[in-house]
Amino acid sequence: MQKSNVFFDVVMSLDGFIAPEGMDMAHANDPEYKQWMNKWMELQHWVFQQQFFLENLNLGEGGETGQDNSMLEETFQRTSVSIMGKNMFSGGERFWPEEAPFHTPVFVLTDEVRQPWERPGGTTFYFVNDGMESALRRAREVAGNRDIRIAGGANAIQQYLNAGLVDEFTIHYAPVLFGHGIPLFANMNPDIKVKIREAVPSKEVTHVTYEVEKE
Amino acid sequence: MQKSNVFFDVVMSLDGFIAPEGMDMAHANDPEYKQWMNKWMELQHWVFQQQFFLENLNLGEGGETGQDNSMLEETFQRTSVSIMGKNMFSGGERFWPEEAPFHTPVFVLTDEVRQPWERPGGTTFYFVNDGMESALRRAREVAGNRDIRIAGGANAIQQYLNAGLVDEFTIHYAPVLFGHGIPLFANMNPDIKVKIREAVPSKEVTHVTYEVEKE
Repeated sequence: MQKSNVFFDVVMSLDGFIAPEGMDMAHANDPEYKQWMNKWMELQHWVFQQQFFLENLNLGEGGETGQDNSMLEETFQRTSVSIMGKNMFSGGERFWPEEAPFHTPVFVLTDEVRQPWERPGGTTFYFVNDGMESALRRAREVAGNRDIRIAGGANAIQQYLNAGLVDEFTIHYAPVLFGHGIPLFANMNPDIKVKIREAVPSKEVTHVTYEVEKE
Repeated sequence: MQKSNVFFDVVMSLDGFIAPEGMDMAHANDPEYKQWMNKWMELQHWVFQQQFFLENLNLGEGGETGQDNSMLEETFQRTSVSIMGKNMFSGGERFWPEEAPFHTPVFVLTDEVRQPWERPGGTTFYFVNDGMESALRRAREVAGNRDIRIAGGANAIQQYLNAGLVDEFTIHYAPVLFGHGIPLFANMNPDIKVKIREAVPSKEVTHVTYEVEKE
């Protein structure tokens, strides 16, 4: 049986952020604050044009069906389980539609003790209180031979990558400057060695997939 | 007459740094410190394999002659003048060979009052004490219709980009994690709008050229 790969896949600003300053629970209802909503939409602009994204979130018909769309769809299809940090979950709990966009089990790293939360459409959130390695073990138990996505946020991604638990990752480099925000990378472990697997040019974004070299 | 374009062209680590922690004047003779020399060589590994680079620094014969090499050579050929900050100059003054690798006028942003310093091979350093706009004016006077390169460091690049004075730039994304170092981007002005001109995949590095949108 093929082993599941652990990966992450994020859109990053030119200056290294995956979310703009001000995009937090305190300002969730204030999209003008630091212009966080505008910045977020600039970052995700290419995503909102893709057919797969629009369909998956029930945002409407149509959309682009080219290479960018295929990449989004492949990432979704390969994912059998996601793992996320508690901040990402808190934001999503408030803003995802009732039919959350995962359609798989999702393990949430949190201190909160809580029963599994089942959503229509196949997403069930499980709350893990005993750490990232435990969450990954539980994810592997249900993953089959499909892959495990570290969905975010930055902190969860950094922890898994620094611990040598990530096999590969994709960064979508978007030509947007945020100034301030949540950096994808901080205090990274320079002993983690990566190489380029594939770089795919596109009009609005550059997709690069990296592979973590294992000893 | 065609106007000179102002550009920069840098190699950046995965986590956003153009130089590793410890690569400074205080540790110039201590390459083991924070492993700065190893990290630098990892970042620049692809450059050191290129024929043009080896020839330009008189490091020897041979080297690769493919697309990466052409890009390095084109960047050199289009550059009629460079502008750099005082830290970059101080490091270079100590480590460049007598025949400095620019072969053009170089304007140095500095508080130091100093006569022009002429090097064999066509490089002359001019010391500018009245600011970045003055340096750019003087660069334009001698640039002809070739281009003006903001050579670095990060601080000079940030200032010119934030002031809207850069027309285009290339980032060579290298798959290396530094953990700490000198970030290419800090406190960027989110009003600066850029778009992708071209992304070029390569084995060890991904080259992306951006264009600054002018109003």
